[in-house]
Amino acid sequence: MSKIKNIAVLTSGGDAPGMNAAIRAVVRTGIYYNLNVFGVRRGYDGLVNGDIFSMDAKSVANIIQRGGTILKTARSADFRTIEGRQRAYDNIKANNIDGLVVIGGDGTFTGATKFIEEFDIPIVGLPGTIDNDLAGTDFTIGYDTAINTVIDAVDKIRDTAESHDRLFVIEVMGRDSGLIALRSGISTGAEAVLIPEIAVDYDAIMTRLDKTRKNKASRIIIVAEGDKEGGLVVAEKIQKQFPHYDVRVSILGHIQRGGKPSCMDRVLASRLGVAAVEGLIEGRRGEMAGLIHSQVHFTPFNKAIKHIDSINQNLLRIVEILSL
Amino acid sequence: MSKIKNIAVLTSGGDAPGMNAAIRAVVRTGIYYNLNVFGVRRGYDGLVNGDIFSMDAKSVANIIQRGGTILKTARSADFRTIEGRQRAYDNIKANNIDGLVVIGGDGTFTGATKFIEEFDIPIVGLPGTIDNDLAGTDFTIGYDTAINTVIDAVDKIRDTAESHDRLFVIEVMGRDSGLIALRSGISTGAEAVLIPEIAVDYDAIMTRLDKTRKNKASRIIIVAEGDKEGGLVVAEKIQKQFPHYDVRVSILGHIQRGGKPSCMDRVLASRLGVAAVEGLIEGRRGEMAGLIHSQVHFTPFNKAIKHIDSINQNLLRIVEILSL
Amino acid sequence: MSKIKNIAVLTSGGDAPGMNAAIRAVVRTGIYYNLNVFGVRRGYDGLVNGDIFSMDAKSVANIIQRGGTILKTARSADFRTIEGRQRAYDNIKANNIDGLVVIGGDGTFTGATKFIEEFDIPIVGLPGTIDNDLAGTDFTIGYDTAINTVIDAVDKIRDTAESHDRLFVIEVMGRDSGLIALRSGISTGAEAVLIPEIAVDYDAIMTRLDKTRKNKASRIIIVAEGDKEGGLVVAEKIQKQFPHYDVRVSILGHIQRGGKPSCMDRVLASRLGVAAVEGLIEGRRGEMAGLIHSQVHFTPFNKAIKHIDSINQNLLRIVEILSL
Amino acid sequence: MSKIKNIAVLTSGGDAPGMNAAIRAVVRTGIYYNLNVFGVRRGYDGLVNGDIFSMDAKSVANIIQRGGTILKTARSADFRTIEGRQRAYDNIKANNIDGLVVIGGDGTFTGATKFIEEFDIPIVGLPGTIDNDLAGTDFTIGYDTAINTVIDAVDKIRDTAESHDRLFVIEVMGRDSGLIALRSGISTGAEAVLIPEIAVDYDAIMTRLDKTRKNKASRIIIVAEGDKEGGLVVAEKIQKQFPHYDVRVSILGHIQRGGKPSCMDRVLASRLGVAAVEGLIEGRRGEMAGLIHSQVHFTPFNKAIKHIDSINQNLLRIVEILSL
Repeated sequence: MSKIKNIAVLTSGGDAPGMNAAIRAVVRTGIYYNLNVFGVRRGYDGLVNGDIFSMDAKSVANIIQRGGTILKTARSADFRTIEGRQRAYDNIKANNIDGLVVIGGDGTFTGATKFIEEFDIPIVGLPGTIDNDLAGTDFTIGYDTAINTVIDAVDKIRDTAESHDRLFVIEVMGRDSGLIALRSGISTGAEAVLIPEIAVDYDAIMTRLDKTRKNKASRIIIVAEGDKEGGLVVAEKIQKQFPHYDVRVSILGHIQRGGKPSCMDRVLASRLGVAAVEGLIEGRRGEMAGLIHSQVHFTPFNKAIKHIDSINQNLLRIVEILSL
Repeated sequence: MSKIKNIAVLTSGGDAPGMNAAIRAVVRTGIYYNLNVFGVRRGYDGLVNGDIFSMDAKSVANIIQRGGTILKTARSADFRTIEGRQRAYDNIKANNIDGLVVIGGDGTFTGATKFIEEFDIPIVGLPGTIDNDLAGTDFTIGYDTAINTVIDAVDKIRDTAESHDRLFVIEVMGRDSGLIALRSGISTGAEAVLIPEIAVDYDAIMTRLDKTRKNKASRIIIVAEGDKEGGLVVAEKIQKQFPHYDVRVSILGHIQRGGKPSCMDRVLASRLGVAAVEGLIEGRRGEMAGLIHSQVHFTPFNKAIKHIDSINQNLLRIVEILSL
Repeated sequence: MSKIKNIAVLTSGGDAPGMNAAIRAVVRTGIYYNLNVFGVRRGYDGLVNGDIFSMDAKSVANIIQRGGTILKTARSADFRTIEGRQRAYDNIKANNIDGLVVIGGDGTFTGATKFIEEFDIPIVGLPGTIDNDLAGTDFTIGYDTAINTVIDAVDKIRDTAESHDRLFVIEVMGRDSGLIALRSGISTGAEAVLIPEIAVDYDAIMTRLDKTRKNKASRIIIVAEGDKEGGLVVAEKIQKQFPHYDVRVSILGHIQRGGKPSCMDRVLASRLGVAAVEGLIEGRRGEMAGLIHSQVHFTPFNKAIKHIDSINQNLLRIVEILSL
Repeated sequence: MSKIKNIAVLTSGGDAPGMNAAIRAVVRTGIYYNLNVFGVRRGYDGLVNGDIFSMDAKSVANIIQRGGTILKTARSADFRTIEGRQRAYDNIKANNIDGLVVIGGDGTFTGATKFIEEFDIPIVGLPGTIDNDLAGTDFTIGYDTAINTVIDAVDKIRDTAESHDRLFVIEVMGRDSGLIALRSGISTGAEAVLIPEIAVDYDAIMTRLDKTRKNKASRIIIVAEGDKEGGLVVAEKIQKQFPHYDVRVSILGHIQRGGKPSCMDRVLASRLGVAAVEGLIEGRRGEMAGLIHSQVHFTPFNKAIKHIDSINQNLLRIVEILSL
């Protein structure tokens, strides 16, 4: 293994709180190990177009607490073509970059895998997505912050729900995964949580809503974006079943991606940023750095993206018990 | 004027942050002046149905910081009938209530006006609505908190907007009024603010968006709920004009009603709660207590509800100047 | 009056949330009127040392929501000497600056007054201080945010106070002024507020604490920094009087200066930033732009700094009534 | 094992955010399994004095998001005497309580251990403390929220630090443990973290401060409460070494205990509350329920309180690398 001298870092896919903390960690760790560090703007697009610039310790000062990503992010159509990837590789060579850290989700790692197969470039990945849908890490960077944003919003909505004796159906992010919905459902004392992984048992929900009526100051139902029917239809069904209820819908939307990262996401991003650079130095490539029970682990990209959504059945059980 | 001995308080219409602070102030001021204080649940409905209960200083402990209203609120169909109002009056008499404080918006005061015309009951009102659409007070209780919630949400969305170079159209509350939109537009550095009071000049907006493109890290357009077309249509128009933009829409919805009241709303609610009870004691009836340039003023209900939406043209000018 | 072409902006004295929103407004308004705009770093020190740089619309992008000041601030010893002011003037001349906006408090305006007397330089001021201790404006930039930070902290402390049946003495900022203490006292339902403007009546406080004991879930006493004795001594006195109480002290300190500006501070800063530049263009000098009952007013520096602390006696009365 | 019919729950020791979520989970799980559930006020004091009351599903409605503990907490002198514990036992018998859930820290479990030795009462514990100083669980209830409160405060202080080019020494909670300091140090990009577990190397700190001066927009040093010297002395030492620095101290204090629990603390408290009741039903006693790598584990009290503070050396290393 030849010694690494120049590394680059980029963020790709949907932005997630904590990406800046991860960028900061990558840059400073690189400098700590006397590497030159480059930033790439707008994900793989920046590689393709040569939007690459030198970074120093100061360029990441005062960003650990900021949402979004200072490197910006994008989904690159060009990088999906062989011509695009060739240009990306040429730009990497032109800058003598011999190690690349990509921060993103499964699309990011799928692209990286293809890139590595075709060209000789060491890439280490960091799990940066609010969806927590990657294998090889207990949590992805951004997941904890996103749920805290959800529960903050639901706490506000509950004030209104309680004052008006309303039932709120609240749709949260998670196109393929019910993880955000499930944890935020427990955290907000939801009556029910509807997630794509589990077929909805409307009879059970209706029975429970009926039974718990007198115990509840407000009624909240959390629906994952990826639910077959979506928040609006769920609300209609409940309204039809209980005409005397005052049912309202709220779709939380893009607020879930932004905001200051939580402590957990900052620590996770900082630890993994250090690990990624140390991994590159050790000669790793094609692997994602993750944290499993507080220990750093590396997982090949092809395994990391094969996340089987293992919904913790116990959490569903807890929603049911506590929605009494 | 016979001396008042028993007063009651209710909240009516949409809930607003600070209503609890107002209830607390009414209850404690009543006790301070040796009155008996009753709470009425669910607005005028509680009067009609006799859902009236005795309150003491402790029943309002630790609520000044809570969103929503512990007395709950509702829109009462019964109270719109003469039979309903007769029953409300009978319940008032049965409890020897000789003064009533109603906290709400124009619907609340319209109801109160009718009630006073028909029955002999002293009522003083407090402006409790996020819409700030009442004459006789600079600000209504809940308005400042609602805008702070809006700007907190937009700050989060801006993280995403900036990371992805997106333009966000954000719809905020205000069915008849653009006040929330206008102040939150200035506070978030919006490119444009679309409000029901002013005809939209799409050409001007498009020109400005084009001109300021290079100066802006993100682009935000705030649309009031009461805009003729609404956020979705506005977004479509802009997308059509600028196909290269990545336009997204976010409708903030019910989070705008909840949450801890801001300092301004707590102080306003506390001052007006004291004023309302002192007003009743002084023999006022059919008037709303408001704060104008930090001084308490009383305004007859029929004038308070005739709020002419006087959009401060200077604020619109400021949006334009600063969206460079 | 010769036409103004080049203006500069600086922040001076203690930092306050909203200063960045004010800087942004000054820069963009300058550009709107086709002026060249310069930033000066670290207050008057930057003038003395020539730390002056050109700003464009983009240099103030995405700062409206940030606490602190991107121009940094300092108290300048050099500027208090005639030699220092001469160098400052020379640097102003060297950059052809013919208008200066200074954002700060009474020290800032005192310096500006002296500078104007000696040299021919048009200066307009903006009230940027959390203390709200300037005449000529209802509120200073930063005041509303600071109080919201205080009440957020007290809300947290109240959780503990209530769980442990404790009495908390909480010291808030305000060396010469009790305004922050008074408004935060009302907003947090404090038992008592101790401020430098009013002699403390310990007997009254002790009597009230004794009387209200059974009504209160928690007991909070707010003490302004400028109180003759300070939070620690106040706590000791109360503990001595009520040995069975569990009395604790919390000095909130520097958190009160930071954080995202509130809506009110952002709107205030934006409006006054526009006004300052338009004031310079109109030929104003030696005046502070302020907002009185939502209208822009200009006040000569020597009057603005002669703020007589007119504590609203009505607010003190409200603390007493509501602490039942 | 005789079947359990009546359980009680209490909170003891310092309050922690998430205690209410845990109480809610215990009460509702008890009802789910058809048990009668009692609440005990003010920790063991309530047992000694018979302050015991019946709870239903509604008594824990709308508390999951509240800081503090609705059952209040205290340190009981009486319970440390054999007479006190006898009275506690008598009250338990008088109410036919055959299972007890105690939520607190090591003092709580030490008391419970003694109580079990002397009397025949099944007790299961839940780790409720911000200090994270218990074995048998990855995290204690309240720890994550407390650190998020710390980083929110430090983010505010950083605004001021950066504006004034100041160095802030910030003291955080942790009498015996540096865990809060360490995680908040990483999360806030601190220059150094001083914790009781590790001897302070002032030379190394001073060297680093000197070296990193030009890279840093602000300088933060986090000191754990349990540090031998404390924040004030640390600040003096640094000021002496670097007379040109503007060094300030902030002691965060009691705000760290309060506030809305974070998502992590709500999920943790909910899961452990369910586990505690199911543990009692299964016949467990003298054990604490904890979560290790997301799985419920039970640990005997005597082992849970023998937490050896195993500071993750890797985290210290990360502070150093990233403080470049």
